Amino acid sequence: MRERLYLFDTTLRDGQQTQGVQFSAAEKAQIARALDALGVDYIEGGWPGANPTDSDFFRDAPATRAIMTAFGMTKRVGRSAANDDVLAAVLDAGTPAVCLVGKTHDFHVITALGVTLEENREAIAASVAHVVAKGREALFDAEHFFDGYRANPEYALGCLRAAYDAGARWIVLCDTNGGTLPSEVSRITAEVIAAGIPGASLGIHCHDDTGNAVANSLAAVEAGARQIQGTLNGLGERCGNANLVTLIPTLTLKEPLASRLETGVTPIALAGLVKTSRMLDDILNRVPQRASPYVGASAFAHKAGLHASAILKDPATYEHIDPALVGNERQIPMSNQAGQSNLRARLAAAGLNVDPKDPRLALILDEIKRREDQGYAYDGAQASFEMLARGALGLAPRFFEVERYRVTAERRQLPDGRRLSLSEAVVVVDIGGQRMLSVSESRDGNGEDRGPVNALWKALAKDLGPWQGCVDDMRLVDFKVRITQGGTEAVTRVIIDSEDGQGRRWSTVGVSANIVDASFEALLDAVRWKLIRDIGLNAGKAA
Amino acid sequence: MRERLYLFDTTLRDGQQTQGVQFSAAEKAQIARALDALGVDYIEGGWPGANPTDSDFFRDAPATRAIMTAFGMTKRVGRSAANDDVLAAVLDAGTPAVCLVGKTHDFHVITALGVTLEENREAIAASVAHVVAKGREALFDAEHFFDGYRANPEYALGCLRAAYDAGARWIVLCDTNGGTLPSEVSRITAEVIAAGIPGASLGIHCHDDTGNAVANSLAAVEAGARQIQGTLNGLGERCGNANLVTLIPTLTLKEPLASRLETGVTPIALAGLVKTSRMLDDILNRVPQRASPYVGASAFAHKAGLHASAILKDPATYEHIDPALVGNERQIPMSNQAGQSNLRARLAAAGLNVDPKDPRLALILDEIKRREDQGYAYDGAQASFEMLARGALGLAPRFFEVERYRVTAERRQLPDGRRLSLSEAVVVVDIGGQRMLSVSESRDGNGEDRGPVNALWKALAKDLGPWQGCVDDMRLVDFKVRITQGGTEAVTRVIIDSEDGQGRRWSTVGVSANIVDASFEALLDAVRWKLIRDIGLNAGKAA
Repeated sequence: MRERLYLFDTTLRDGQQTQGVQFSAAEKAQIARALDALGVDYIEGGWPGANPTDSDFFRDAPATRAIMTAFGMTKRVGRSAANDDVLAAVLDAGTPAVCLVGKTHDFHVITALGVTLEENREAIAASVAHVVAKGREALFDAEHFFDGYRANPEYALGCLRAAYDAGARWIVLCDTNGGTLPSEVSRITAEVIAAGIPGASLGIHCHDDTGNAVANSLAAVEAGARQIQGTLNGLGERCGNANLVTLIPTLTLKEPLASRLETGVTPIALAGLVKTSRMLDDILNRVPQRASPYVGASAFAHKAGLHASAILKDPATYEHIDPALVGNERQIPMSNQAGQSNLRARLAAAGLNVDPKDPRLALILDEIKRREDQGYAYDGAQASFEMLARGALGLAPRFFEVERYRVTAERRQLPDGRRLSLSEAVVVVDIGGQRMLSVSESRDGNGEDRGPVNALWKALAKDLGPWQGCVDDMRLVDFKVRITQGGTEAVTRVIIDSEDGQGRRWSTVGVSANIVDASFEALLDAVRWKLIRDIGLNAGKAA
Repeated sequence: MRERLYLFDTTLRDGQQTQGVQFSAAEKAQIARALDALGVDYIEGGWPGANPTDSDFFRDAPATRAIMTAFGMTKRVGRSAANDDVLAAVLDAGTPAVCLVGKTHDFHVITALGVTLEENREAIAASVAHVVAKGREALFDAEHFFDGYRANPEYALGCLRAAYDAGARWIVLCDTNGGTLPSEVSRITAEVIAAGIPGASLGIHCHDDTGNAVANSLAAVEAGARQIQGTLNGLGERCGNANLVTLIPTLTLKEPLASRLETGVTPIALAGLVKTSRMLDDILNRVPQRASPYVGASAFAHKAGLHASAILKDPATYEHIDPALVGNERQIPMSNQAGQSNLRARLAAAGLNVDPKDPRLALILDEIKRREDQGYAYDGAQASFEMLARGALGLAPRFFEVERYRVTAERRQLPDGRRLSLSEAVVVVDIGGQRMLSVSESRDGNGEDRGPVNALWKALAKDLGPWQGCVDDMRLVDFKVRITQGGTEAVTRVIIDSEDGQGRRWSTVGVSANIVDASFEALLDAVRWKLIRDIGLNAGKAA
């Protein structure tokens, strides 16, 4: 019979304390629904009253199976819990659970709060009792607990007992400064349980300041704690909170945890983990970290030639779990180290089956290496990789040629102080001997100037003769710019993601010192890839 | 009396197996010198023979106190160690140490290698003996050790003993697939020592596939191992190797490790850690991870208003170490949660001392919030923050106005197939009523087109009348582009880093849907900031 392990997500509260992060109420609702679908047990939505957005969120919070939780702090000394307006605002959010943070490190009580140890302990007890009296589930976040326990274990434990005796459902040991190591977390958690707070009421809340947030969380659970607090993608102040996206697969798939403990995350929910992680990155407009455990794009990427050959024989040789369990996939990327087995696997994934003895394989490898030296990167631009290979294999119809283009970006300051921006592009293409000139400006429906690359795309896509229908079915959904050497004296790599009405999504790359030129190169690859998919090989003029 | 703990860096070998990473021999030499200055004991430079760049590196490797190490694999079954050409190439690099990887997991021996268990064990013994006979220090990387020990402990230990008895100085337990958890590493390492391989000869080599590489390394050391293998910035395949940048401060500063163990990293070298970490990011052209433990830009950034007030009273309230020890610094960033204490601290850092009661503080906070909603980010653009604050405080002379600009980017395909690219910019400025028109193209000294932003900068900097000397002293050193919403229908944020001849370095930001416009905005802030520094407040026309 497995014991229940509870997951408490604080992406919307502690995660919001990350530098550069500010969720709108709508974004919080979106994240809350995703967390609920994932199967976490508690969603800490924010600090109502202290953050206006948080009050809004709680007012219209989505209905969830997860227990919606409001965060706050213990009452201030010198007034009763009922008369503390900050605490009242937290309770007014009407959530089923309330999590209050309070000091348990004597140094903080005296230096930061400026009150006596007894006053602080009484404030904890009174605040928790007040929450319980209001019919809510009470959680107590023991701030700076591990530092406090080392400095004055009696006092720190006294604070825990005050909260526990006042009726708190959960006592959460917080490594607030993030400096505690796993063996200490292990030892101290065990001592807390031995001192009388049952493991079934203990939670753990870690930060990653020494790179041990995940390990510290596991250590506490192994010592008997039964709640883990963390965030999606390890979001959080400084180095972040314990990363639930990293912890959940370990808890679900790795022994001995998987057979001893049970969370609320089902296998189906687990398979949605990559999507959930990317959703948060999208909202924050962050580039997903390729090396993230379990969900990173590189987490199952096997670059070394030896590894790739072994993987093709049996994935268990170099994979610790099946990537599909978390919604990820295996990758055999291109690189200097890639043997021809890597290349053939990647060509096969692109729908091009090449005989192992085909001498053009070596030519393709050399071309890729040459271009990567110039700044191209094919790992994130599979469609450009395919176009390059097709070129070498004689399977790349051109469909059209671009004779020239010109892009102009202008800005004027009007006499009344307003600024006027305008971008215009002219593209001249040749389709089977027929020259077509197209001009476009970059104004969108609101009259806003969207910039020179946008103008260029619109001009290119305006009149492609017989291919017009295919291009009309295409849209650009992402545009990543990278300077591969420092400064404006640099080579620019542009990666464009395109989608079409038939559910395809593909990435292409362009490189140039000139960002417009790099963008154009990526655009051309994107269009030609699409035309090959829609038209096939025969209609275009072969390379 | 402290025991010696050895650090083995494999950035240049295992780190090179990262997707998208390919070091040149010169870059390897630069990294090797930095590793040596940091104080690591071993530098694994690569696999000579297998990688041409690696052979080049070893041939001209810098002289280091650290022991230069060549990587390779145990001899193939069916030939003697002396007759294995791959092994011979490794020895031919002439390094003082040689690290050979060999299979210790029976599944791999049979499935991946296709030889018998005894043949593999004999290959390990013979290879190590050969290295020792050649007068080199031998290290044995026990591949897949933890998986192998769980599957067939007798066989795995037998492989270790084979290497140890043949004279290996170090036996390195490798968690090659990265799936082992800290408590298992702890247990198994202890059992290996109990079975007869002394801790003083044991090394640990972990990967971060479950987010536990750092914790696993610490666990092995706590169990008695005395060598840690890792990489700078956790570079490495899939989720990366154990991050030495994260481990070194913990080993040096945290008890009980700091008083029991001693590495080769001195306090002075430790204070250079941030620089070393950034150096590698620069070489790889990677954006440094803000949340990296110890060295991240956000590692000591305190956003929450409560935290910031406490920090101002005593840094120990929310910092687990003094950031200066690793070459980092405390940050009190701007955000919606920032109270006015944050803002005043940041203004003071910019040299602007504002009275706490000044009503313009609230105006500045509001303006920052408004602009951040539009896509501006001031955390990484301190000079633009300062310009904004100066504007609100009436301390921002304009020096010049830009009436208009026009940038043209053109590309033609010549009849002979060559492509011709050209960018040109016209900028019209008004300096104290006098209009000046400047035109520039973006060709550099080699006739290469450097793109529209480059042309714009050159035109702006070409003739600024009385301010020309200041602008001539300026150069742009970095240019970061970020699309803050998806796709080309997006707002572009450009951050420009500038340097001058007086050792200053400053960052400015610009935001627009139009990348050229965003770049221009950042350029204007950069120039005006420089002029304020050089000229002062009185010479320009006040805003």
